[in-house]
Amino acid sequence: MIKTPYLLFLGDAPDQLAAKVAQGIKDWRPDNAVGQYRMEGCGADLKLGDMTLEEGLEAGAKTLVIGVANRGGIISKAWKEVLLAALEAGYDLASGLHNLLEDEPELVAAAEKYGREMHDVRVASVEYPIANGEKRTGKRVLAVGTDCSVGKMYTALALDEAMRAKGMKSTFRATGQTGILITGEGVPLDAVVADFMAGSIEYLSPDNDADHWDVIEGQGSLFHVSYSGVTLALIHGGQPDALIVCHEPTRKHMRGLPSYTPPSIGQVSELALAMAKVANATCKVVGISVNTQHMPDAEARAYLAELEAEYGMPAVDPFRHGAERLADALAAL
Amino acid sequence: MIKTPYLLFLGDAPDQLAAKVAQGIKDWRPDNAVGQYRMEGCGADLKLGDMTLEEGLEAGAKTLVIGVANRGGIISKAWKEVLLAALEAGYDLASGLHNLLEDEPELVAAAEKYGREMHDVRVASVEYPIANGEKRTGKRVLAVGTDCSVGKMYTALALDEAMRAKGMKSTFRATGQTGILITGEGVPLDAVVADFMAGSIEYLSPDNDADHWDVIEGQGSLFHVSYSGVTLALIHGGQPDALIVCHEPTRKHMRGLPSYTPPSIGQVSELALAMAKVANATCKVVGISVNTQHMPDAEARAYLAELEAEYGMPAVDPFRHGAERLADALAAL
Repeated sequence: MIKTPYLLFLGDAPDQLAAKVAQGIKDWRPDNAVGQYRMEGCGADLKLGDMTLEEGLEAGAKTLVIGVANRGGIISKAWKEVLLAALEAGYDLASGLHNLLEDEPELVAAAEKYGREMHDVRVASVEYPIANGEKRTGKRVLAVGTDCSVGKMYTALALDEAMRAKGMKSTFRATGQTGILITGEGVPLDAVVADFMAGSIEYLSPDNDADHWDVIEGQGSLFHVSYSGVTLALIHGGQPDALIVCHEPTRKHMRGLPSYTPPSIGQVSELALAMAKVANATCKVVGISVNTQHMPDAEARAYLAELEAEYGMPAVDPFRHGAERLADALAAL
Repeated sequence: MIKTPYLLFLGDAPDQLAAKVAQGIKDWRPDNAVGQYRMEGCGADLKLGDMTLEEGLEAGAKTLVIGVANRGGIISKAWKEVLLAALEAGYDLASGLHNLLEDEPELVAAAEKYGREMHDVRVASVEYPIANGEKRTGKRVLAVGTDCSVGKMYTALALDEAMRAKGMKSTFRATGQTGILITGEGVPLDAVVADFMAGSIEYLSPDNDADHWDVIEGQGSLFHVSYSGVTLALIHGGQPDALIVCHEPTRKHMRGLPSYTPPSIGQVSELALAMAKVANATCKVVGISVNTQHMPDAEARAYLAELEAEYGMPAVDPFRHGAERLADALAAL
């Protein structure tokens, strides 16, 4: 387990979306985040208060968590200087990057020298099976998105919280580095070898009580050509009973793909349901979750009301207005 | 490069399908296969003539190729005895198994002792990029299947051969171990880490002449829950201009999934085309390829004629009757 609380390292993140790992920790485990560490040129801000490494330690931080996603990038020289200083100052390190801390000889040497731990939460520590497709007991709900980074993890975490508040049996199942950093366990799906992706999700959401829900964190989008295969493995490995479609209505193009237009909620709903029915013929789309952070509240509420009328199901922004109505929709299934 | 010709190791393969690696080499590079090596209980037979290791060497074999697929299995003690004997006798080894030769200390030691090479063709030797989805020059055709092991690789190899016979520019692009063993290069897609799957296929089929076709080998099936994510990464990374739907009509259930019924050609066609249009809006399904090996020829021809009438496109068994009509369909695009 990773020692808490954390100082959240934002590095030189180009924008707020790039810091979604840190944002997720701050939003869902605020007690675990004593502050943020930013480098020159950082375009992200968690409104947590900037701290030096020394100030973080004084505030009680035990681990410096790299809270920044990089697109298949590298651990830069500038980053490494900070990480080395952190190890020397007294921090453990935790990271969800593809580039592993354990593959950096300088970091490994410093961790050994100073007796610190380094956690690469993206590394698969389990030999996952190939999916067998067998029907499992218990219920599962999966968040699917019109794009990457539209709020699938937030939706799942908020839904899990709302379900437990209603007295339902529910477990959030993390499939990405942020979720794993938040919950301390899960499957780092985007780092799993292709043949074992669906099997890793079967492993993550095993047989359970008939009235228990696994709330499986979604990844990517069936319409995002870089990561769609990961999304389909989640749908088929998760064999969900229910889907929640997640959307960010101000997105002009698919994340990282300037020439790709985001699909409509209806397109995602139709295609994801067609795919989900291969593994679970009774699967239903039960609700819509919208990330309305870029809309004034009145506009957001009007937009959500329009979606409810168009699709005939609850449409909410779980971060802004809570996920109770999505939990109700699952309870009614 | 792997030294040819080969002696094909079939081990204790439970059935003929399990030996499809060896079968593919025998069918597409018959000059490379001097014979087969079978162990007690082997249920596969390539009709190549059984040879001992010594007889293989006398016939000129340079490499013992493990021609058997195992579902996430292990290299058994009985296999290892043969492989060690082969290294001692004078063979290089080549394998497409998930379990790597290079991870077996006894084999590594023997290879070193006797000066032999070991080739794990499933290992990704390239750091593939994340897919960027940008439109590439040249044309691409992808084989998609109703199930695994229905003849997608055969279809692609036969199509490539037929296109070149017509004077078209064509390159077979291998995405699995058999294809890689046959052509000596390609992407071992089922061993690629999830996030890089689609990118590896972009890498495999780069910009080319406007009239050049990449014939991309398919993997899995959108309807096979164990491997569907791999299939979708191929569709989105390959951004095909044309799809060929591959089918095996006597299959009672999805390969390895007793409770899953194979989809119809129409279902695969519709869903694969919907997915393909995300990456290439002009993609078309241009033909049907049927593996009719379990049907008498008259029955096969009648069945293919029915499919042509139903779907309004060429339907052929490329192994039995040639792939010329599929090549014609691509030439007419």
